[in-house]
Amino acid sequence: MIVVLKNGTKPEQIDNLKAWLKSMGIDTHMSVGVNHTIVGLVGDTSGVDMDLVRSLDIVENVQRIQEPFKNANKKFHNGRLVVDVNGVKIGGGEFQIIAGPCSVESREQVCFVAECVKKSGAGFLRGGAFKPRTSPYAFQGLLGEGIDLLLEAKKMTGLPIVSEIMNITHLPLFDPVDVVQVGARNMQNFELLKELGKTKKVILLKRGLANTIDELLMSAEYIMAGGNENVILCERGIRTFETRTRNTLDLSIIPVLKKLTHLPVVIDPSHALGYSYMVKPMALAATAAGADGLMIEVHNDPPHALCDGAQSLTPEAFDDVAKAVFQIRPFACRFDD
Amino acid sequence: MIVVLKNGTKPEQIDNLKAWLKSMGIDTHMSVGVNHTIVGLVGDTSGVDMDLVRSLDIVENVQRIQEPFKNANKKFHNGRLVVDVNGVKIGGGEFQIIAGPCSVESREQVCFVAECVKKSGAGFLRGGAFKPRTSPYAFQGLLGEGIDLLLEAKKMTGLPIVSEIMNITHLPLFDPVDVVQVGARNMQNFELLKELGKTKKVILLKRGLANTIDELLMSAEYIMAGGNENVILCERGIRTFETRTRNTLDLSIIPVLKKLTHLPVVIDPSHALGYSYMVKPMALAATAAGADGLMIEVHNDPPHALCDGAQSLTPEAFDDVAKAVFQIRPFACRFDD
Amino acid sequence: MIVVLKNGTKPEQIDNLKAWLKSMGIDTHMSVGVNHTIVGLVGDTSGVDMDLVRSLDIVENVQRIQEPFKNANKKFHNGRLVVDVNGVKIGGGEFQIIAGPCSVESREQVCFVAECVKKSGAGFLRGGAFKPRTSPYAFQGLLGEGIDLLLEAKKMTGLPIVSEIMNITHLPLFDPVDVVQVGARNMQNFELLKELGKTKKVILLKRGLANTIDELLMSAEYIMAGGNENVILCERGIRTFETRTRNTLDLSIIPVLKKLTHLPVVIDPSHALGYSYMVKPMALAATAAGADGLMIEVHNDPPHALCDGAQSLTPEAFDDVAKAVFQIRPFACRFDD
Amino acid sequence: MIVVLKNGTKPEQIDNLKAWLKSMGIDTHMSVGVNHTIVGLVGDTSGVDMDLVRSLDIVENVQRIQEPFKNANKKFHNGRLVVDVNGVKIGGGEFQIIAGPCSVESREQVCFVAECVKKSGAGFLRGGAFKPRTSPYAFQGLLGEGIDLLLEAKKMTGLPIVSEIMNITHLPLFDPVDVVQVGARNMQNFELLKELGKTKKVILLKRGLANTIDELLMSAEYIMAGGNENVILCERGIRTFETRTRNTLDLSIIPVLKKLTHLPVVIDPSHALGYSYMVKPMALAATAAGADGLMIEVHNDPPHALCDGAQSLTPEAFDDVAKAVFQIRPFACRFDD
Repeated sequence: MIVVLKNGTKPEQIDNLKAWLKSMGIDTHMSVGVNHTIVGLVGDTSGVDMDLVRSLDIVENVQRIQEPFKNANKKFHNGRLVVDVNGVKIGGGEFQIIAGPCSVESREQVCFVAECVKKSGAGFLRGGAFKPRTSPYAFQGLLGEGIDLLLEAKKMTGLPIVSEIMNITHLPLFDPVDVVQVGARNMQNFELLKELGKTKKVILLKRGLANTIDELLMSAEYIMAGGNENVILCERGIRTFETRTRNTLDLSIIPVLKKLTHLPVVIDPSHALGYSYMVKPMALAATAAGADGLMIEVHNDPPHALCDGAQSLTPEAFDDVAKAVFQIRPFACRFDD
Repeated sequence: MIVVLKNGTKPEQIDNLKAWLKSMGIDTHMSVGVNHTIVGLVGDTSGVDMDLVRSLDIVENVQRIQEPFKNANKKFHNGRLVVDVNGVKIGGGEFQIIAGPCSVESREQVCFVAECVKKSGAGFLRGGAFKPRTSPYAFQGLLGEGIDLLLEAKKMTGLPIVSEIMNITHLPLFDPVDVVQVGARNMQNFELLKELGKTKKVILLKRGLANTIDELLMSAEYIMAGGNENVILCERGIRTFETRTRNTLDLSIIPVLKKLTHLPVVIDPSHALGYSYMVKPMALAATAAGADGLMIEVHNDPPHALCDGAQSLTPEAFDDVAKAVFQIRPFACRFDD
Repeated sequence: MIVVLKNGTKPEQIDNLKAWLKSMGIDTHMSVGVNHTIVGLVGDTSGVDMDLVRSLDIVENVQRIQEPFKNANKKFHNGRLVVDVNGVKIGGGEFQIIAGPCSVESREQVCFVAECVKKSGAGFLRGGAFKPRTSPYAFQGLLGEGIDLLLEAKKMTGLPIVSEIMNITHLPLFDPVDVVQVGARNMQNFELLKELGKTKKVILLKRGLANTIDELLMSAEYIMAGGNENVILCERGIRTFETRTRNTLDLSIIPVLKKLTHLPVVIDPSHALGYSYMVKPMALAATAAGADGLMIEVHNDPPHALCDGAQSLTPEAFDDVAKAVFQIRPFACRFDD
Repeated sequence: MIVVLKNGTKPEQIDNLKAWLKSMGIDTHMSVGVNHTIVGLVGDTSGVDMDLVRSLDIVENVQRIQEPFKNANKKFHNGRLVVDVNGVKIGGGEFQIIAGPCSVESREQVCFVAECVKKSGAGFLRGGAFKPRTSPYAFQGLLGEGIDLLLEAKKMTGLPIVSEIMNITHLPLFDPVDVVQVGARNMQNFELLKELGKTKKVILLKRGLANTIDELLMSAEYIMAGGNENVILCERGIRTFETRTRNTLDLSIIPVLKKLTHLPVVIDPSHALGYSYMVKPMALAATAAGADGLMIEVHNDPPHALCDGAQSLTPEAFDDVAKAVFQIRPFACRFDD
């Protein structure tokens, strides 16, 4: 971290600053230039509050040199993380599609969809049992029963399952769930992240709707700092002013994350965009850009003759997308390590 | 809710739609125009998922007519809510300043600040015991001990206290806290909101950094749907592209909320802007626009001679702001009911 | 357009509204529902100011059913537009790479780059002669001399050229330029658009940094309403909160535009992202999603040993990107029409 | 400007960098720290392209220390600018309301409104003759005739007039206009700014919908660099995700601009918010925060019985707002110089 001091800062103010930093275990390296004095901070600055330093009266500006994330940082790992769930691998060159219904609704639904997506080549079954809803009056999911139905579909197909947790007190229910998802709205629910860091579950962490990539990595860091290294990162769209899509899918997260971290990167075009007609082009784009996986919503029975334009694909439409994805995958961008 | 159907929708598709809505208890009123057919939904549509309806293949567009919030809606209440905490009132013409340190650091600190802000006219003492921090390596607050210190300051000054909760399992610790704050990052932590809805605590709910006013009201609705009507809404800045301020303080939330809800509205200029030099002008602006209260950070001892420019005001600077606020308050905008 | 009236609107107010609309040539179709009255507007509503209607005291809400753009609307054209510049075609299944330096700097530079990118398969040469710069003190381009140098490179290679116009009084200088670019900051310079609409030049119109897709189409409509149908649309990144990229490349614009308009869609990953290491993955993504073309910056001689990480690719790096793009192109998403 | 070099940068690369900077007239001051080398740039760096430097392969990060604006910078001026238009002063403690219709529609309209707003205390008359409209099919203003009508109203009332220019070729028409407005969509129409810099007109420059305060100041700099020092800055709302207001009025621009520049600051709550019910609270807020002036839309005759809720106030409503504004003004925040 580099701190640029204002012109006219007095020596005793600088001494106070150095003493305060020293008290946090940080050494300093002073550089007096023509127009300004620069203080280089030496040591582990990951706990230093940049905002606080910037707000000091004698400080012109502050700049972080080291990334504030360590466990999630590619620099400190040999090679990329390959997450292995019962033999299904994702990351480090292994590519998977995670598919299934938005909400688990019934045994028939989830089992039928699971068999379909397996046939089309999906590696994981997703399904929501606990649903974060903006309105308290909207359907909140089948809760524990939803988890049970997912487990039946897993038994039938062998597909490992992915489902979202919203409350740390539900953790025992997620014991048999293979991948625990943290949704966009909980990306900075630090208390939830801390608790998940104490488990050994594979965590799929979704980027918040208005969060930066660095904030996503700091949230991964919360989990990893607790000892759980099995984190998959997921882009699901960010808020912008565009109204033709529900959110804007930020695919440039792929090269950025590949540069900064060794963790696998999954893209969810279904939630990001909100319209099924955009799923195929964006799934192909994400694959071409080098994503490690895709998360795609598939619904068995969009209300007859009424709805085939939803964010969810029918099994047939999913099959078409999956075929195109697997066809384009060999030509995707690769990232050296 | 009004649903505009696409040209060429077939009668049996319309029948399917009507049957599906009927299954949710919603009646329909059809209107066939020259270019389009419009379906008016009759009944309680607060549980209808607009996004789902919009995604139906036969639907051109959807528009909500009724607000989806009921308990938080001014229409269904006589007059504005006056929250009364041990005789200190806020809302419905009663104005208060909530002041105190960002984090509780020591008994001396919190008691000294409490006495200062009381002398300057503050009605509530604020102080953070549990701190949401982007980095797991940054100071996370004094936790339970911080609450104890706040209680000592309360005993000494009589000021009711406001402190932030981050984890529902901490609720017992907040039993003696007068006003429980939900921070911006937890505004859509629906599980936390539901649990707070079951209590009788006064809740101060902060708007999320990229959330709309309607989403804030839906989060209030989560608390109120559980039976807890004591909610104070707080604006603390939203994310924009501006870099000269930490966030952008959206003061137009005041007239908007005064039109939509009966709940009190508090403005926090300290967190929103991140620089102490902006606190006074924006505190005056918020007061003039008709806010029911202000939340302002005050620190006893910004590191000697080092920092008087932080987001926190010194007690002297706070006294100056409070004087100006009380002076301008009689000329503030008033909202008829 | 559908206008929802507030409860309690009086008959004479409705009559006034109908008379006012009639005076603009708009007929109305009334539908009286249980909770609200809906007015359907019949006729050409493209000139009706939605904001003004929404602000009327008796209006609850307004919704546009027809798109407000006509010339740019796919519905009113048979098939997609194929722009043909001296035999080089783009759109409607024809794919091109537009490549060249950000600024034209010298004869050697632009001719060398032109030969390189031609060899790698580019169909157009781009180069800036007039540069929009945030600071009046920064280099503003070689101006007219820059155009001359581009023309020399065109003579040498046969590549048609693309260059940006900033001032309508410069139009005569652009007479020999094949494709006239309107930059992001001028997307809503309506006076410039109107004048370009009176010419027969091919226009490449870039999306503004914070503009929606509909606004981009309305700006294309300004050009086309003047009689010039040769418009190519270009995404070059939008402003978001992300700081690891200069802007966020919104690739979902591809399926959205393919649905709404018959005009060709080009993606510019160089300007959008600002770092050369992201150009390849995002160029592949854009191609896979079904873009009609790419615009890529190529620089001959990034300052020796100093800069090979700029937004511009070296000719060698561009050759690698172009090869990968042409390889993935056969597997790209296709849009039926 | 401070440039932080990457670890492992070779001495000859540093020499190349120094030589390149030297060629632009910039000296350097090197500081070798434990983890990184820092290059301080000495000299006038206002023409140095930060993005280009950041993109150099050896550069970790870049930070500007000096503001890139000089003419618009408070540091280089004694006291604040007081703009004096025929004796009507704004800035440096002088406060004015600029009021009038959005569009000039007729002689009766503009003269009636002018007399009303003068009676209520407005210091300037505003009115649009050339209207920037998103749609080419919408009313584009009365053009030159509109200017003539404004001049008649000026003759009748003595109020100096403010009107928007969109095309530099219209400049002769604006010869008798007292204050020439540059609208939000033209804030970065650099060619227009340059031409206005060559005139002696007072310019009212509006902030773009998604532009930062620094970008606004750089646009002012374009005008001032040409020799025209008479610039008034105007906030009219920025784009955010909020849908209850047309734009978000960023009042924190007032303390920020008061710190950075000596130019007067005017706030336009009418355009920012789009609903007349918000004008009064936000006008009071802007005044309390220390704005030098307000720009408020007033319409003589909102369509009878139809519209009294538009963004424009009636003369009676404006009179009420003006009274409240003048009443609160003595208690507004003041900024020391």
